[in-house]
Amino acid sequence: MLVATTMFFAQEKSIKMVFDVTSSNEATHQSAMRHVSSMAKNFPDSQFEVVIYSGSLNMVLVEKSTVSSDISKFANNNNVTFKVCATTMKRGGADKSMLIDGVEVVKNPLVQIYSRQQDGWGYIKETNN
Amino acid sequence: MLVATTMFFAQEKSIKMVFDVTSSNEATHQSAMRHVSSMAKNFPDSQFEVVIYSGSLNMVLVEKSTVSSDISKFANNNNVTFKVCATTMKRGGADKSMLIDGVEVVKNPLVQIYSRQQDGWGYIKETNN
Amino acid sequence: MLVATTMFFAQEKSIKMVFDVTSSNEATHQSAMRHVSSMAKNFPDSQFEVVIYSGSLNMVLVEKSTVSSDISKFANNNNVTFKVCATTMKRGGADKSMLIDGVEVVKNPLVQIYSRQQDGWGYIKETNN
Repeated sequence: MLVATTMFFAQEKSIKMVFDVTSSNEATHQSAMRHVSSMAKNFPDSQFEVVIYSGSLNMVLVEKSTVSSDISKFANNNNVTFKVCATTMKRGGADKSMLIDGVEVVKNPLVQIYSRQQDGWGYIKETNN
Repeated sequence: MLVATTMFFAQEKSIKMVFDVTSSNEATHQSAMRHVSSMAKNFPDSQFEVVIYSGSLNMVLVEKSTVSSDISKFANNNNVTFKVCATTMKRGGADKSMLIDGVEVVKNPLVQIYSRQQDGWGYIKETNN
Repeated sequence: MLVATTMFFAQEKSIKMVFDVTSSNEATHQSAMRHVSSMAKNFPDSQFEVVIYSGSLNMVLVEKSTVSSDISKFANNNNVTFKVCATTMKRGGADKSMLIDGVEVVKNPLVQIYSRQQDGWGYIKETNN
């Protein structure tokens, strides 16, 4: 009984969620980081992933981001990852040296999100409009 | 045979869907309500839930909402629920007395949406841009 | 062993994804088509569906769309389908003769998306804000 209860809680409290960010709007970057930071704090043993593509490149660029310090806080936290699209970087003239610490590059952001959804992760589209 | 057919239809026609609204845009509030009202009318025995957080607080405030009458129509309908984020209310200086009749407060809107997704509900992000 | 490996790859490479487009923003129509075209090219045996409703009607109208040629390329491709909401057409004063070649009309776009999600398809909300 005790084991079952413990397992139940562990299951209850373990969350896996992918956040889809395509906006150039800084308010969207900021609300996305509020969501991720709050979830990571409340569910420290869960997994959260932010996928950045299309118009949201500036969110992960050291020189442009308004949420740079919020992102870099997770640089050494394997439970919270940030993945930016390689094509989006190329289109925006960005290379890896311009990325905030800990941000990874992913070849195909849609496949990344799809894989997470197939694995049962929750999905949240971030938008402010 | 008749029972099986009836069960099939019941299953076919039973929909569970969560709507994610974060926008301050009144057009988004209005299209969200068009969607929910239409679905509730076409699928009266199904369950629909609208989760309001981030920028969308005004949607559920009596004094600010442009969809107040559309929401209050569901005040006594347990199949259509509206859940606003407690933190969003606090940030917006709102208390329960300012909410449209029937709107409930939820501690964590992302966990709310996640739980629905885990339970197999459909997910629609409402946005106008 | 060979069969198992082949089946594994087939499964790996087979993607089913529904794109939800409600925006009147032409930039959103364009990024949606970039996503769909790229996925269709990389995963030719997979299935992609774009559901157009609410504010996005112009995306599929011959006289108004900025992505007309991108959409008509898929007119004879059963793996990539475009489905516009009948009610959205009616509200916008559009009839079938005004649609880009290959675009189909669907009675209920939310049920369409819901059915895809229930069948395990991935879900992407397209938005630029």
